[in-house]
Amino acid sequence: MQTKYLLSEDQIPKQWYNIIPDMPGPLAPVINPRTMKPVTPDDLLPIFPMALIAQEVSRERWIPIPDEIREIYKLWRPAPLYRAHRLERMLQTPARIYYKYEGVSPAGSHKPNSAIPQAWYNKQAGIRRLATETGAGQWGSSLALACNFFGLECTVYMVKVSCTQKPYRKSMMQLWGAKVIPSPSEFTNAGRSILAHDPDSAGSLGIAISEAVEDAASHADTNYALGSVLNHVCLHQTVIGQEAKAQMELTGDYPDVVIACCGGGSNFAGLAFPFIADRAAGKQVRCMAVEPASCPTLTKGVYAFDYGDTAKIAPISMMYTLGHDFMPPGIHAGGLRYHGESPLVSQLYHAGEIEAKSYKQNACFEGALLFARSEGIVPAPESSHAIRAAIDEAVLAKEEGKEKVILFGLSGHGQLDMGAYDAYLSGNLEDYDYPEQKIREALERLPKVTL
Amino acid sequence: MQTKYLLSEDQIPKQWYNIIPDMPGPLAPVINPRTMKPVTPDDLLPIFPMALIAQEVSRERWIPIPDEIREIYKLWRPAPLYRAHRLERMLQTPARIYYKYEGVSPAGSHKPNSAIPQAWYNKQAGIRRLATETGAGQWGSSLALACNFFGLECTVYMVKVSCTQKPYRKSMMQLWGAKVIPSPSEFTNAGRSILAHDPDSAGSLGIAISEAVEDAASHADTNYALGSVLNHVCLHQTVIGQEAKAQMELTGDYPDVVIACCGGGSNFAGLAFPFIADRAAGKQVRCMAVEPASCPTLTKGVYAFDYGDTAKIAPISMMYTLGHDFMPPGIHAGGLRYHGESPLVSQLYHAGEIEAKSYKQNACFEGALLFARSEGIVPAPESSHAIRAAIDEAVLAKEEGKEKVILFGLSGHGQLDMGAYDAYLSGNLEDYDYPEQKIREALERLPKVTL
Repeated sequence: MQTKYLLSEDQIPKQWYNIIPDMPGPLAPVINPRTMKPVTPDDLLPIFPMALIAQEVSRERWIPIPDEIREIYKLWRPAPLYRAHRLERMLQTPARIYYKYEGVSPAGSHKPNSAIPQAWYNKQAGIRRLATETGAGQWGSSLALACNFFGLECTVYMVKVSCTQKPYRKSMMQLWGAKVIPSPSEFTNAGRSILAHDPDSAGSLGIAISEAVEDAASHADTNYALGSVLNHVCLHQTVIGQEAKAQMELTGDYPDVVIACCGGGSNFAGLAFPFIADRAAGKQVRCMAVEPASCPTLTKGVYAFDYGDTAKIAPISMMYTLGHDFMPPGIHAGGLRYHGESPLVSQLYHAGEIEAKSYKQNACFEGALLFARSEGIVPAPESSHAIRAAIDEAVLAKEEGKEKVILFGLSGHGQLDMGAYDAYLSGNLEDYDYPEQKIREALERLPKVTL
Repeated sequence: MQTKYLLSEDQIPKQWYNIIPDMPGPLAPVINPRTMKPVTPDDLLPIFPMALIAQEVSRERWIPIPDEIREIYKLWRPAPLYRAHRLERMLQTPARIYYKYEGVSPAGSHKPNSAIPQAWYNKQAGIRRLATETGAGQWGSSLALACNFFGLECTVYMVKVSCTQKPYRKSMMQLWGAKVIPSPSEFTNAGRSILAHDPDSAGSLGIAISEAVEDAASHADTNYALGSVLNHVCLHQTVIGQEAKAQMELTGDYPDVVIACCGGGSNFAGLAFPFIADRAAGKQVRCMAVEPASCPTLTKGVYAFDYGDTAKIAPISMMYTLGHDFMPPGIHAGGLRYHGESPLVSQLYHAGEIEAKSYKQNACFEGALLFARSEGIVPAPESSHAIRAAIDEAVLAKEEGKEKVILFGLSGHGQLDMGAYDAYLSGNLEDYDYPEQKIREALERLPKVTL
């Protein structure tokens, strides 16, 4: 009874899959918040290298992965695909459940899939240092790892309260040589202006983004790197779905439904986009993005132009949003707390090409516990959203007496999130109702864009 | 350039390798501390199932691995073997360095290799609950995982100070359904007698062993499980070395030296014993056990009969020991702080069949940092001892201008040990000189055994 489906290193994808030419209609322009006109490549050059700007708008379906990047991918890729035999038995379901596990990377999640190429293209462009922000720490540690491999300096603006709550993530960044700066800091105008009004500010992702972007924009040898949302980040993550397709072929099954958790959208895009591409060949596959009920961007947000950050210095994109100053409650799935959503994922959802579902965190941890006790692996709180949705699909299959093939993305492990499990096991995990009034208020502050 | 050497699930070993028939001479008897006579199987039945007692003394070279155990092994086995290309380049060494990585198990170390069979054999024997002790928490979490799979209850006596210092390990045990009791506790005579004299006792591994053994011995439905030292634990771990041999064949290389960290000895045994077996076929391979300079059992201890625990209730074995009441300093490699050593490993060392080396912890963390920055993986503090020795062998190869093939065991990841890395990076990690006077004193209290 086979449990793991492995590929050899020469089966690491040689190209990333770019969904842009296959989108259902043209992309909306991205707007420069200063000029309120469409962004030009020149607008982005102070913070991104030209190669990544080109990937952001490329209409090539396949983009070659440089050998130097594939060499680093080999440290953990191809990532394994599992058949969840024990979970199936526990659920007594006729469904066959598979999961693609990205927690095998040194940083413990899928994030290095994009951190490695971002660092490499910046190195090629002669950049000496990258600046970024991190909340929960998954992205910051992945970029620290990537910069370390290519001899780049790395500055991570880490939300101040996270430095205290997630000290191990901070330590990992430092182990890989990054400089971690609690945000808000005295190093940027953005940070200083916050501290002037509130010296004890605990920080927020919005502030940390502003600090990192300002740092990059004001130093010629420094660029900025973002861990999700952007087209080129979704692009890099498609190694996940391409490998999963090759592995599903080994199983002899093809998924009826592909499920992934969705915050900024790159994890969902990475797994789902290569399956969506199969539809052109007549394959029928549902794709489901799962998000927290307390930050329900797709399921309760609006499809509109909005700023990428709270401070309104990042570009304005057409996307599902809860409003750029929406502050979601402090759930444990820190990686799913973004107010917006990848424009590509948003457009697909708006066109009815994909589904979305939301869960409260106790329901997710209930699924994570069932998973940890059947499959062994401790899931990241983010990934637990996909697990919960997969379990519900499997239970439905049982009720309907249907065979069904379910594939979900296990985007990371949760060994550094045990405090969240403690809270769940002791019955102290809060469920948040989605603050409808707050969203309505935030949506009144969307930018006015006239094309 | 291949980085990982993988095996398929049907290449998970079907037998454990038992080194007893290949030992250089007969085994010394194990002594019952109450009677001071050789232990009989009946002496052990109150705490171990007959199948494991039989394995402890078996003279069969190959012992079949039950299918039910191989099914669970499939959740992470075969474990990958890596070529450390990037570390080699960093060291500019002509040596080829390979490492076998056991951190891919759900618990993050090699420990489940024995926890799974121990739980299974106890389940077969009709046992309802297992009791054990844990210090750093690697063994406790592995046994919790194993008991969970087979529907056994699990009680872990965890050294009280570790409950505070390693809260995430405690959480993992609870996630997998174990009951964690800070030791010393009010639940046993051993615990109560300690608390009567010292209500604030921080606990010790010796006390926790006494509590777990007493719990098992005083409940008919409960047995005891030990995570290292014993012959059957070394036996179970030989899946590591057998897989590594098959993977080394794929590389086209054969190791000149095999290196593993060594506390109780089962990790070293697991990797090295199958290579030692190759000597009968004329292969020349050095095997090196690496231990902390602050707990130098092989390199500074004596080969003598001694108690397995501080409270003198565990059997007396012929082994290298620092004395059963030797208390090593609180180094971060918590898994290497045992006063004794596997009798099998001890006998091999006494016979000159294997080498031993010790390092202070700053030297080990220096190696771990180099490794994390070249290979990405964050090593467990225990495993860093093997890394340091492998680096020194590689540097020596460079100085001598020799090609050399080095294989070392990376027994676990260190993502839950980031506090230790913080201490190292901030220059606050203490190096302990080995307390020679204390060892001399402890050795005066060895038991007198007359055969």
